[in-house]
Amino acid sequence: LVDHRWLSPWGVLRLCDCLLRGVAQVVFVNNPLSGFLILIGLFLADVTVGGATVFCIIIAFFVAKVLLDLPDGQISAGLPLFSPVLVGSVTASLFTPFFNSPITPAVWGYMGVAAVFSVCVFAGLSHLLASHNLPAYTLPFNIATSLIFLGMRGAGYGASPTVDTATDLPPATDSPAFDGLENASLVTPDDLVHVEWDKVCLGMLLSSGQVWAVESVACSALVGVAMLLFSPLLTAACFVGGAIGTLTALVVSEGPYAAAYAGVWGYNGFLAGGAMLFFVVASPRVLVLAVVNALLATFIQAAVVPVFGQNNLPVFTFPFCLASLLLLAAVSSSSSFHRVASPSFPE
Amino acid sequence: LVDHRWLSPWGVLRLCDCLLRGVAQVVFVNNPLSGFLILIGLFLADVTVGGATVFCIIIAFFVAKVLLDLPDGQISAGLPLFSPVLVGSVTASLFTPFFNSPITPAVWGYMGVAAVFSVCVFAGLSHLLASHNLPAYTLPFNIATSLIFLGMRGAGYGASPTVDTATDLPPATDSPAFDGLENASLVTPDDLVHVEWDKVCLGMLLSSGQVWAVESVACSALVGVAMLLFSPLLTAACFVGGAIGTLTALVVSEGPYAAAYAGVWGYNGFLAGGAMLFFVVASPRVLVLAVVNALLATFIQAAVVPVFGQNNLPVFTFPFCLASLLLLAAVSSSSSFHRVASPSFPE
Amino acid sequence: LVDHRWLSPWGVLRLCDCLLRGVAQVVFVNNPLSGFLILIGLFLADVTVGGATVFCIIIAFFVAKVLLDLPDGQISAGLPLFSPVLVGSVTASLFTPFFNSPITPAVWGYMGVAAVFSVCVFAGLSHLLASHNLPAYTLPFNIATSLIFLGMRGAGYGASPTVDTATDLPPATDSPAFDGLENASLVTPDDLVHVEWDKVCLGMLLSSGQVWAVESVACSALVGVAMLLFSPLLTAACFVGGAIGTLTALVVSEGPYAAAYAGVWGYNGFLAGGAMLFFVVASPRVLVLAVVNALLATFIQAAVVPVFGQNNLPVFTFPFCLASLLLLAAVSSSSSFHRVASPSFPE
Repeated sequence: LVDHRWLSPWGVLRLCDCLLRGVAQVVFVNNPLSGFLILIGLFLADVTVGGATVFCIIIAFFVAKVLLDLPDGQISAGLPLFSPVLVGSVTASLFTPFFNSPITPAVWGYMGVAAVFSVCVFAGLSHLLASHNLPAYTLPFNIATSLIFLGMRGAGYGASPTVDTATDLPPATDSPAFDGLENASLVTPDDLVHVEWDKVCLGMLLSSGQVWAVESVACSALVGVAMLLFSPLLTAACFVGGAIGTLTALVVSEGPYAAAYAGVWGYNGFLAGGAMLFFVVASPRVLVLAVVNALLATFIQAAVVPVFGQNNLPVFTFPFCLASLLLLAAVSSSSSFHRVASPSFPE
Repeated sequence: LVDHRWLSPWGVLRLCDCLLRGVAQVVFVNNPLSGFLILIGLFLADVTVGGATVFCIIIAFFVAKVLLDLPDGQISAGLPLFSPVLVGSVTASLFTPFFNSPITPAVWGYMGVAAVFSVCVFAGLSHLLASHNLPAYTLPFNIATSLIFLGMRGAGYGASPTVDTATDLPPATDSPAFDGLENASLVTPDDLVHVEWDKVCLGMLLSSGQVWAVESVACSALVGVAMLLFSPLLTAACFVGGAIGTLTALVVSEGPYAAAYAGVWGYNGFLAGGAMLFFVVASPRVLVLAVVNALLATFIQAAVVPVFGQNNLPVFTFPFCLASLLLLAAVSSSSSFHRVASPSFPE
Repeated sequence: LVDHRWLSPWGVLRLCDCLLRGVAQVVFVNNPLSGFLILIGLFLADVTVGGATVFCIIIAFFVAKVLLDLPDGQISAGLPLFSPVLVGSVTASLFTPFFNSPITPAVWGYMGVAAVFSVCVFAGLSHLLASHNLPAYTLPFNIATSLIFLGMRGAGYGASPTVDTATDLPPATDSPAFDGLENASLVTPDDLVHVEWDKVCLGMLLSSGQVWAVESVACSALVGVAMLLFSPLLTAACFVGGAIGTLTALVVSEGPYAAAYAGVWGYNGFLAGGAMLFFVVASPRVLVLAVVNALLATFIQAAVVPVFGQNNLPVFTFPFCLASLLLLAAVSSSSSFHRVASPSFPE
């Protein structure tokens, strides 16, 4: 398909191929079919989320192709497009709980601006990090979405009539950490008794959907299937990472663990687990490192949730990016590991 | 002039040439005459500001030449000197509104320390960023001035008798963003009606003076003339950037827009617009990117104003630096753009 | 000793050699005897602190050797091990004052996790900074310890029954900066009269122990002796740096200066002074730069104390790391300085 020119009759097909690969690249999958399954999952979970995703990825494609003229190989693999995918899905699904207001046309405008930013930031960061042989992961998405969330708040969105914005944040996201500051009792064995293990398992599954900020069993299952199509080993690493993240949450947060049950503590571990296996040739040591990476990402998440909370901002996937950048750089400094020459699938 | 040695009779003349170029380098202008006009503008606006500028630039010259022994080419072009220029003018003009107290001799001492720091930080960051072929912009100024502002606050300056420091900050700087958090109403078409467009135009003009933190029509006009002498294209890019910044402010902040009318929302866009044209060979695409850069800088400004406000700190030109670093790096990753080999003027 | 293999009978001896060098590397000393003296000092000051140090360094050794397989030369010199040393000693000595609770077995668990993180982060940052020819200093320790402190707070540790956690922080650490915000009077000559110069001198001495977060005259003296064994010039630079830091504290903080008397304002200057002399060939200019570096580190400390305080976090040695990275990079950009080819001791 890559042999056909963009302006030939095959162009539309190739465009779709690109965009679907972009959707799948979020979880390191370079495969249009997987992208298609995941996109269905997003629409199933919430039509607005699916629509926002499509809206942002189309804008991003034109910025990458027409304005910045990025290398064709990058665009065909969907690399500049996965950050805008997340901009769309995460903004659409977190806007209402965070700002207590419906999505207006102006919000779509902000979203479009963020999609443009994320492609530019991707190009910039990729260039900088390439000299260290590191990928930019989802940092462009994190930066662009943080900017528009703070910009929208500056413009007066989400200012509730009573000034208690900080207290009625969605419990699914950072309430446990805040509770931790207010709750007087130390962690006692008693607290641990109250962990509902069936919900914890559900949380591990939901982690995969939470990568797109979607809490839906159907979507999470479709993501799982889509990843299995591409690489069972990568899928296993991701889900193990998600499980580790969710379990770690029980150690670094306090009850009632609603966020852990919703998968919110798992998605950074999910991505972190996959990132190690995707970029490094698999070996037993790498598996241990993938576990350490998932653990580190979850600790970083616990550390930055209250910091970001001061500005009413979710943590997005900053924790995953920081942990994976550090560990991937660590791997490069040792001769016992081999970076994958051209990342495709671990098997 | 460069042929004469520093210690020959020509030394004094050459020193003046250097210092004036340093003043002009703030807006990418490498020309002593322009520097002279801008310095007159600063003295016209406020004699203390002009004096602080001269004080800091002389200290900076000796640090760069005698202590660090930086390459002669850099010093002759005034590159290590423009950050100290900003340290002087910005500290002198923002100290009184931010600390509610007059400038004492001790403040001049802090200012001198900051000038020394800014030259050292310039040398450090230039070296680090040079490996990515990026300039340090005004980051050294931002870092040095942030340090002394926080240091002075730690030493008890500006602690008002009543503890309402946070509430009576100067309205010209970050009040709109804070109002946004307190004001209950969403942005409605009604609010937009109240925009006074004549003041907005004035704000666009004042942007050029606000680069040195000076709000004065005379100074801004002199900056404009000084830049025209050097390069009309660069001047146009800067003023377009300033206009975009001021207009964007109407979208990311809430009424009554006093800051936008004073040019405070424009100076990051002003610098961001110029930075693209200065470092990249001009083309239609670059013009679009300059617009995106100005937009991105203003969004970053909206995002960091409340964050910095928690520590009672102005945002200085951090937004411009971050946006321009990212976009200049983005440009380097694409083969459609060409970096200017030896930046002089765009024509 | 380096010629013997790890698994030979000499292994245990070589292991001890490594670990003791790791303890001493915190103050740039590569010498097992010095490490032994410092370790005795830590045990003298507080048995728990000494135990935690040994606990963390053993974990770190196995992570560095078995999991990451770092180059043997690095491990023999103790480079990956000095960050875990600080993780152990600082966590053990700051946990009780910061969390108002005794050290439980769970805290030892967190400490072990932090030791693992710090080695991984060391490997990652070293690789990144090596391309700029810069060392990672103690940044890995800072990152790892910040993470577990925030993680433990998220898990509910240290939440006092009344919500006045922020007000009863240990006075030795950041109360002066907070007082600065609350205290209404400006610095007047009167305040300066109250400086107790004998306590200031004691504070300068205590600085050397505060590098490991230990406030003990015996430990500080042993550190001094241990450093003298290795290099008198380096020792002098460090203590001058500590003195500058303590004196600067009188300028950037307000009375009653309890923190300065305890050496808390001196340890960043102590390390900063030594860092310049250790990595650059000594010359009169370098001595001036070492003074500037100590000054810069203390200003950064004054600037970040209130920022970190918002999250109830001590500043660790972040100020030293930032200042030294910038100035060492500055030095590299000038031809008048020569980096030491293989850092050993300055003479």
